[in-house]
Amino acid sequence: MKKHIAPVPLDKASRLLNHGPATLVSARHAGTDNVMAVSWACMLDYAPPKVTVVLGQGAKTRELIEKSGTFVLQIPTAAQLRLTYDVGHISLADDPEKLKKSGVTLFEMDAHDLPFVAGCAAWLACKVIPEAHNQETYDLFMAEVIAAWSDTRAFKDGRWHFEKAGSGWRSLHYVAGGRFYAIGEALDTAEGMPE
Amino acid sequence: MKKHIAPVPLDKASRLLNHGPATLVSARHAGTDNVMAVSWACMLDYAPPKVTVVLGQGAKTRELIEKSGTFVLQIPTAAQLRLTYDVGHISLADDPEKLKKSGVTLFEMDAHDLPFVAGCAAWLACKVIPEAHNQETYDLFMAEVIAAWSDTRAFKDGRWHFEKAGSGWRSLHYVAGGRFYAIGEALDTAEGMPE
Repeated sequence: MKKHIAPVPLDKASRLLNHGPATLVSARHAGTDNVMAVSWACMLDYAPPKVTVVLGQGAKTRELIEKSGTFVLQIPTAAQLRLTYDVGHISLADDPEKLKKSGVTLFEMDAHDLPFVAGCAAWLACKVIPEAHNQETYDLFMAEVIAAWSDTRAFKDGRWHFEKAGSGWRSLHYVAGGRFYAIGEALDTAEGMPE
Repeated sequence: MKKHIAPVPLDKASRLLNHGPATLVSARHAGTDNVMAVSWACMLDYAPPKVTVVLGQGAKTRELIEKSGTFVLQIPTAAQLRLTYDVGHISLADDPEKLKKSGVTLFEMDAHDLPFVAGCAAWLACKVIPEAHNQETYDLFMAEVIAAWSDTRAFKDGRWHFEKAGSGWRSLHYVAGGRFYAIGEALDTAEGMPE
């Protein structure tokens, strides 16, 4: 897998999240790694790229983020449907074996002390912009994207290649309960896709 | 079209936006109606339902929202690809004929002094929760959803029916420039879709 991973320039990072995929958020603190599923993740700015994520009060991963000030936001694939559902429905507090039972494999990226979920289509390393009022009143966290990467089989040269990649690479889009949609077909206006 | 429009209970409203579609945001103030395209729209809470939208500084629709405190967030369809692109790329400030040239038809909903874009799959009437710091620093607006409706051909009984509705009803998912994706196929874990 790692031979397929390439950096994504920060000025293209918004393209990883614009289409509204379900995400996995991972974090590390004091020797504990955890992953949660986050549907309510959205871009906040282009340059530098920033994101918002809504992290519920009881989430263990949120605690790690509050302490470390960093997290990885990654884009899971259709092949990771079950993993994404499980990671979203099992709490590390209830089950210390959560990651193993969900089939999560973590890997490292040089120079980033963060856990990355293997098999995803893209990863954004994020640094929290502390905004206590938002965090406490709305569970809304804002962060700057400090680096991004993609698996080039899914996203390369600044664009998604869902049409060419196998169907297992398609992004997931959550509705409720166990229902997700995969992303579908590309639709271009005459202006087409910029470089 | 109106015979196909039915209210969506507020406790199901998040299902309209969870899958991350591109949206159109419309607003009205002092006799002026406008519509803009907003990709960076996301749920913020379930009960009561709340949303966030990122509205750029220069957007005319943003001015209307700042003055009126309300807006409609609607979910355009694949059939409205060109309309969505045009609404996102023409400014009312530059072209007073923006809505006509984009092919936008507006309609009214009883008891709501707001413009609704015809032909969409769903509509959420929103009331801004004033948070000046977010609005001024990040262009981020928070709002409570006070009412919601769907075209029952696309969303009915609390769920999307993309598989049965014609392909023109599929939601749009923005990447960059003229490139969008339509939502694709439903993927269910064993738990399936809740009622």
